[in-house]
Amino acid sequence: MNDLNVVAETIKKCQRPLIGGHVMPDGDSLGSVLALGLGLRLLGKQVTMASSDPVPELYSFLPGIQEMLVGEVNPGDYDLLIVVDCSVPERLGAALLPFYEKGLTTVVLDHHVNDQPFGHVNYVRSTAAATGEIIMDLLDVLGVTFNTDLAVNLYTAIVTDTGSFRYENTTSETHRRVARLLEYNIPVARLSNLIYSEQPLSQIQLLKEVLATLEVSESGQLATICLSRQTQLSIGAHDEHIEGMINYARNIKNVEVAIFFRELEGQRVKVSFRSKYFIDVNLLAKKFGGGGHVRASGCTVEGTLMEVKAMVVKEAEKLLGGVLNCGRYYHHP
Amino acid sequence: MNDLNVVAETIKKCQRPLIGGHVMPDGDSLGSVLALGLGLRLLGKQVTMASSDPVPELYSFLPGIQEMLVGEVNPGDYDLLIVVDCSVPERLGAALLPFYEKGLTTVVLDHHVNDQPFGHVNYVRSTAAATGEIIMDLLDVLGVTFNTDLAVNLYTAIVTDTGSFRYENTTSETHRRVARLLEYNIPVARLSNLIYSEQPLSQIQLLKEVLATLEVSESGQLATICLSRQTQLSIGAHDEHIEGMINYARNIKNVEVAIFFRELEGQRVKVSFRSKYFIDVNLLAKKFGGGGHVRASGCTVEGTLMEVKAMVVKEAEKLLGGVLNCGRYYHHP
Repeated sequence: MNDLNVVAETIKKCQRPLIGGHVMPDGDSLGSVLALGLGLRLLGKQVTMASSDPVPELYSFLPGIQEMLVGEVNPGDYDLLIVVDCSVPERLGAALLPFYEKGLTTVVLDHHVNDQPFGHVNYVRSTAAATGEIIMDLLDVLGVTFNTDLAVNLYTAIVTDTGSFRYENTTSETHRRVARLLEYNIPVARLSNLIYSEQPLSQIQLLKEVLATLEVSESGQLATICLSRQTQLSIGAHDEHIEGMINYARNIKNVEVAIFFRELEGQRVKVSFRSKYFIDVNLLAKKFGGGGHVRASGCTVEGTLMEVKAMVVKEAEKLLGGVLNCGRYYHHP
Repeated sequence: MNDLNVVAETIKKCQRPLIGGHVMPDGDSLGSVLALGLGLRLLGKQVTMASSDPVPELYSFLPGIQEMLVGEVNPGDYDLLIVVDCSVPERLGAALLPFYEKGLTTVVLDHHVNDQPFGHVNYVRSTAAATGEIIMDLLDVLGVTFNTDLAVNLYTAIVTDTGSFRYENTTSETHRRVARLLEYNIPVARLSNLIYSEQPLSQIQLLKEVLATLEVSESGQLATICLSRQTQLSIGAHDEHIEGMINYARNIKNVEVAIFFRELEGQRVKVSFRSKYFIDVNLLAKKFGGGGHVRASGCTVEGTLMEVKAMVVKEAEKLLGGVLNCGRYYHHP
């Protein structure tokens, strides 16, 4: 039942929709909830927008965000649950899941590959770069007139999920939709600043510490960085700021594989992998009980930072050239 | 005479055009030269493409770049000079300027604000995000059939001059053109890697050193970084890698003004300014005999690193709040 018209008919019939996205909300989830919520209000619906998890401060500029319920949703009297950017019920989180479990009619709108979406009415388009693209099309089908607030939310959804139009999911259709959104006087430079140029100072301090651990293999194709638990605690950085650090290793010239070793409690190490052009790091993560995608994967391994690093680097070098140069793996001056 | 048809007529009549851009070539200059050059070849012209300055290694992936003459252009027998992305003859550089000076008919295609372009036939459109947009339109007027090689060059021109579609110059028309370019099977993710994810290791080492000098004012609105001549020489970093460092200071949360102090030979300091939302750093640079734009400017000041920093920070804080907190200006833990 992959038809936007069916979704539109279902939505037209409702009066009091509850709209939500996934836990640990990102720009696509939030922007999609808000664009759809503000859009349905223009059609006269009594809209409630909600998130089980807190909204990252980064997204406090999104039009309508101050009206989003966070962490708790009163039972209320909803006649439809609309879920965006969420492929399994569990990712609705504690505040929204009960409504689905109690049988409230549920519409799922998503761009993740998913053969069995969990809604009563579903629309999944995995070629969409962001769920925001689907919301944009749905608003058109519903006959909603666009405005700047809608456009800013949709733009944010699309720009964040495409990494500023750099990822593989970016298509002609993505740019064509954004061309249209820009006609609603979106302040592009200001939004870019708000999204990309407001990094917490702790993130920069973390970067300084992490760069001090950078090592590049003799071949230049493998780069590693490390973060001890002690350093992390002393800086007090959030997980969302830690994750991105691996890109500094990945983005070094000639590096194909980047690995980030992050010490956890109880002699465990979280290992993240990234590759640039040809190495399947999903295979690498699988060797250590993890998984993920071809260019981004991860696993958690028991042992000290040093032990885990030695083991994982050995496997990575095998994959990178068959040549075992572990003895010559050195700290670049 | 700001008519693309006039340009097209002039170009149609030529047989052996010499095409060049500006010194210190960037993505827009190189991509525009190559797209136009490859396009005119498809029309049967005997095209010579040239650059007075070396091509940054970063751009070695551009289709056709290996055919570009660098640093020296034999007198040859050219019947037209086509100059892209260049607003004054001096920026043609030593290899190309003589052709203009000797009176070779010159076409100028540019997107910089310029009331008096220097060509015999000129087309200037300052609303274009990149000269690449103008070249794209010109190729259409000339009836050139697009292909992947042309599209990659035009895409690179546009994506680099808009900072990946983040700068103020990005318009609906920009995205509309890129939507069309993507139809020629551009490998977006691969190009993004080549353009943004191949940073020399020396750049990361430089970053480590420069971050160690980061200071943020008590108000959190002013951030400074420094680079001593000794550090720069010991790392051996290129100017193009040094310039970008200021963004790490600018992109800190709540920071409005970022200043980068870079020690030069002979007791002089190069000072770069960036602002985010509201401070006019052109005014700031002018106080020290420099200049630039509202959000990006610079000057060179005589004195030691410490002296110049104290002076400039004082003026910046005046501008930022009228409150002189120099005594409380401190090194953030």
